[in-house]
Amino acid sequence: MSLPVPHIGRLPAGPRNSITDVAGVRVGHCTLDDGAVQTGVTVIAPHPGNLFTHKLPAAVAVINGFGKSAGLVQLEELGTLETPIALSNTFAVGALLEAQIRHTLRANPECGRSLPTVNPLVLECNDGYLNDLQRMAVQAAHFEAALQALSEEVVQGAVGAGRGMSSFELKGGIGTASRCVVLGKAAQGFTVGALVLSNFGRLPELILAGEPLGAQLAGQGGSDSAPEKGSIIMILATDAPLDARQLKRLATRAGAGLARTGSAYGHGSGDIALAFSTAQQIESEADCVQMALLADHLLDPLFHAAADSVEQAIVHALLAAQTVRGRDGHVRMSLRERLAS
Amino acid sequence: MSLPVPHIGRLPAGPRNSITDVAGVRVGHCTLDDGAVQTGVTVIAPHPGNLFTHKLPAAVAVINGFGKSAGLVQLEELGTLETPIALSNTFAVGALLEAQIRHTLRANPECGRSLPTVNPLVLECNDGYLNDLQRMAVQAAHFEAALQALSEEVVQGAVGAGRGMSSFELKGGIGTASRCVVLGKAAQGFTVGALVLSNFGRLPELILAGEPLGAQLAGQGGSDSAPEKGSIIMILATDAPLDARQLKRLATRAGAGLARTGSAYGHGSGDIALAFSTAQQIESEADCVQMALLADHLLDPLFHAAADSVEQAIVHALLAAQTVRGRDGHVRMSLRERLAS
Amino acid sequence: MSLPVPHIGRLPAGPRNSITDVAGVRVGHCTLDDGAVQTGVTVIAPHPGNLFTHKLPAAVAVINGFGKSAGLVQLEELGTLETPIALSNTFAVGALLEAQIRHTLRANPECGRSLPTVNPLVLECNDGYLNDLQRMAVQAAHFEAALQALSEEVVQGAVGAGRGMSSFELKGGIGTASRCVVLGKAAQGFTVGALVLSNFGRLPELILAGEPLGAQLAGQGGSDSAPEKGSIIMILATDAPLDARQLKRLATRAGAGLARTGSAYGHGSGDIALAFSTAQQIESEADCVQMALLADHLLDPLFHAAADSVEQAIVHALLAAQTVRGRDGHVRMSLRERLAS
Amino acid sequence: MSLPVPHIGRLPAGPRNSITDVAGVRVGHCTLDDGAVQTGVTVIAPHPGNLFTHKLPAAVAVINGFGKSAGLVQLEELGTLETPIALSNTFAVGALLEAQIRHTLRANPECGRSLPTVNPLVLECNDGYLNDLQRMAVQAAHFEAALQALSEEVVQGAVGAGRGMSSFELKGGIGTASRCVVLGKAAQGFTVGALVLSNFGRLPELILAGEPLGAQLAGQGGSDSAPEKGSIIMILATDAPLDARQLKRLATRAGAGLARTGSAYGHGSGDIALAFSTAQQIESEADCVQMALLADHLLDPLFHAAADSVEQAIVHALLAAQTVRGRDGHVRMSLRERLAS
Repeated sequence: MSLPVPHIGRLPAGPRNSITDVAGVRVGHCTLDDGAVQTGVTVIAPHPGNLFTHKLPAAVAVINGFGKSAGLVQLEELGTLETPIALSNTFAVGALLEAQIRHTLRANPECGRSLPTVNPLVLECNDGYLNDLQRMAVQAAHFEAALQALSEEVVQGAVGAGRGMSSFELKGGIGTASRCVVLGKAAQGFTVGALVLSNFGRLPELILAGEPLGAQLAGQGGSDSAPEKGSIIMILATDAPLDARQLKRLATRAGAGLARTGSAYGHGSGDIALAFSTAQQIESEADCVQMALLADHLLDPLFHAAADSVEQAIVHALLAAQTVRGRDGHVRMSLRERLAS
Repeated sequence: MSLPVPHIGRLPAGPRNSITDVAGVRVGHCTLDDGAVQTGVTVIAPHPGNLFTHKLPAAVAVINGFGKSAGLVQLEELGTLETPIALSNTFAVGALLEAQIRHTLRANPECGRSLPTVNPLVLECNDGYLNDLQRMAVQAAHFEAALQALSEEVVQGAVGAGRGMSSFELKGGIGTASRCVVLGKAAQGFTVGALVLSNFGRLPELILAGEPLGAQLAGQGGSDSAPEKGSIIMILATDAPLDARQLKRLATRAGAGLARTGSAYGHGSGDIALAFSTAQQIESEADCVQMALLADHLLDPLFHAAADSVEQAIVHALLAAQTVRGRDGHVRMSLRERLAS
Repeated sequence: MSLPVPHIGRLPAGPRNSITDVAGVRVGHCTLDDGAVQTGVTVIAPHPGNLFTHKLPAAVAVINGFGKSAGLVQLEELGTLETPIALSNTFAVGALLEAQIRHTLRANPECGRSLPTVNPLVLECNDGYLNDLQRMAVQAAHFEAALQALSEEVVQGAVGAGRGMSSFELKGGIGTASRCVVLGKAAQGFTVGALVLSNFGRLPELILAGEPLGAQLAGQGGSDSAPEKGSIIMILATDAPLDARQLKRLATRAGAGLARTGSAYGHGSGDIALAFSTAQQIESEADCVQMALLADHLLDPLFHAAADSVEQAIVHALLAAQTVRGRDGHVRMSLRERLAS
Repeated sequence: MSLPVPHIGRLPAGPRNSITDVAGVRVGHCTLDDGAVQTGVTVIAPHPGNLFTHKLPAAVAVINGFGKSAGLVQLEELGTLETPIALSNTFAVGALLEAQIRHTLRANPECGRSLPTVNPLVLECNDGYLNDLQRMAVQAAHFEAALQALSEEVVQGAVGAGRGMSSFELKGGIGTASRCVVLGKAAQGFTVGALVLSNFGRLPELILAGEPLGAQLAGQGGSDSAPEKGSIIMILATDAPLDARQLKRLATRAGAGLARTGSAYGHGSGDIALAFSTAQQIESEADCVQMALLADHLLDPLFHAAADSVEQAIVHALLAAQTVRGRDGHVRMSLRERLAS
């Protein structure tokens, strides 16, 4: 069945309809596909330079905190991003923290000595339905491989950290999208891009572009009725000049896009949104930072861009993912296959 | 035109489809309708007794804090509700704080002397498009009148605090709804009820029960393109035994229902949700409180009930409201009238 | 007895040792001293202009939220101060909210019409031991009188909002202090000023400049052993260029100064700190704001200045206050008188 | 020189003056002392059973979030502790997360399969002055060794996670203390215990039991004037029946004790307090939990106990620590030795 990809909302997408429409942002995957090991790593590099010395304003919105992501305490306090963003499964956080530290040390040999320690950022979802978490298969080498694969072309679906993820009892994974806005008296153009690691939702809840598709499908073929143990990580990038306070407001709007797909932010779902701005870098050695900041009264189009690009990215993840078979014979069928069956 | 009222979501409503389906909850309005004065007061009484001596667990979720509500700092710290909930316009907060204090003093003459002071709760939206805020028309007597009018029958639409409110460039106001769930091995039944003071949204954003109705209407007749200066107050009541931490989680789900109507939590919109539980009262004199608390892993149906009842209440407000003409000839047409035109 | 005023910490004070050492800041009092009415209003004007159109970055740290202050929700969301700061007693919040609104309307007649509504800021403590709260004696005229009295010379002790306040079972009230720091490679000088409305603490807890003076006094003459129903409001001003995120960090350090006087942030004490920066104004009409921001790694001296100036201001309040007799024959003796007795 | 150990505050200590005065709590260390490797692991076991199936109410107060601790997002959302508390250096977090997961898996083989994943808790300070962080010397085996060493007798000073820590430019490390209170009409006795990993402060700031000892010492021998890169982790245990909301209030009071030692919560210092109650266990399979909760109006003595036991624990850490020589010839002299020199 050839389901067309609906366009969410009224704002136009960027040329790639991807988080990489925000200039400088790149994404890389490393996928592990080996029997009961169905997992991987996805890395988002917010700019091509040294993030430890040239940080970006960033903020997090914890919509539902049933999650084990690391690095959020300091990000909340200082409002800066100083490593790439690493995504993987829940039991991989430790390995990726170490990999992030070693990556920072290579470029900044005095980190932890004459320089402060680094705040490694790792976000996660539980892919345990398809992937045997207990094998702790993800290693530092997989993080390095994802870094090597950084590109402006983002493969979506059952790849990288999305390999083993489930969404609405269907195959979930990586999705991305973008939206463009024009703001203010100077009619300046800005882009918001989203990348999601989509691993949430029970089938009857699925709303696809406003349609209660999940209820229709569940009516036909049933739902497994297990309580949700999912999660979704939602990363927002923008080239609009926003500070950490404004980025927290932007990140909060990811929850609006998420809700429109049917989620009520399930108890067991770690629903976390992180937003960063590429507009200005913060040099770690400078005594004073000059910032040009957009006025808050211009934020509404960016808020809609954030909500719409997250909803679009979730739809992209569902429509791009292929069926995956994993541990103990567990299978997550792709939405396309389910619709065709 | 007779638009049928759609049922939101898959959970059944309570007998009244109202916040008063939670036993003990009553609602009263006082409406001011006099030329440029189009405003009023709505009071929610969470239980029939003395709230100052018999408090209820409660929590707030500030989804977008562009708002002037009072009483939230202490509610966040102590997790208790100790006055009725008063709703009105932005410039009425002062008058209602005083009215709340005097109401508490009548029943508790030692409040502020041998007993602690009371934390009066007043939430507000900006009804300045229809109502001449600067007249500060709301007085203590209107609060008293709303208390006198407390009832289990809740009038919806352009009444009470909702008199002058706008939503999606249409007439907004008061809406209410409820949802019923059955939880756990004991299959125990619980109710979640919502009451909204709906005053948010631009027309093109309106999604009614999944349909992009606003975009259709705006395409025909245009939108006034002014930036949003609205707000929505969302009150959730439940008879499920939840504590303040859990009620904060419940309140957060109001944002999911709000998002499904098209909101991306506009910059200028004070989007605030408050949840309380009637299951157990906290005696202010007791040294120790015995609480039966629902386990968090049973919360998902309550979360859906919260999101669905908020969305339903917003729809009810739109469909119940009549056209209102206010200050400077401003008119907000009802959705029903707009659809018929 | 002539108790010398100890100097807290190792940083030098500004020329007035007052919050008005931060250029542009002025303070005014209106004192009500009439039998059972022992209360008043204190206003802090952060700059001489129109705050509604030229806002200042600001933030709040709620150290213990047992308090009824109004205006903090929006201040937290937007990070700006748009009215003077009004201080008074707990039951005066409503009257002062209205007074603040009317004050803003006079200078901004379109507020609440074509312009957004204003977020009036009112902070409070419970002066009910000396003052008959239930008379609700504070009116708009007292706010106006405090505004008329704005000055760079700050009277301390039992004046303005501090008239009826108690601290450590002694007479509390208004205190102010300042500290000067030199920062960064450019050796630039900045000032932090504090003003407190001091109404917290039981006698045995009092630590004066490191000395357990309260335990000594309580040992001699006893303590009234009632549980604390106090509060302290701590206002910090600085001319250092800080944004709202950094000002929240600064405000948090007020709690360190408070702790050194013996407080463990009592359950019933609303301990709230608010910080603002006068370095840059945010024009409400501008589409973009240029901000020069101090780097976070230079903040430590400002943090010490905040803690020390708050501790010093509390000491000043105690040492400046005179004995006051109020409702029902209640008396709060000044520390100087107690030491002399 | 034989400096007597001052007693902080007016409350009595428990029999051990240790966090293990709270029944069921045990502490274990594993110390690494090998040239440039001066570090280790400390584990606190809150009760002797299976924490994953029998959780404890818990909460965190992030006083200054410059830190890389892991597990706090979920602890904040759910208010429960489900692993032992592991303390170590900043670059050991990844290894300890994995060790915590494997430890939970051994007792709960379905964790991450039919059961949810576990939220491993790891808190850290930067011991990089004495310890060569970049060697990442801490491994899972050291966590296991600390678990093996669990005991009610707590060794203090330069042991376990405290091996390489510095405080006030002196040798810091592990300290513990406790305080006893009697509450309410039933005069029931409760204990609060604190354990700190003390790694903060510059010498001139040190206040020891009210005395500005650091300023005296710095005046004699100088301070190294480097900006602070420390941190302090403060763990509070109590047998009082408190829920997560109340425990967050308790944890906040750790900041009061910290401030009294001279800290103004330095920019680069991750000052984090975590509190748990052993009074009642939360069975993960139960649909409903019965909780007896202490009334908030009885909390003040517990708040003082928390502040005093944290201050006492910091003093204990300073007075127990011995001089340590670590990487690159760096030496941290013990306070006792410094006073004797």
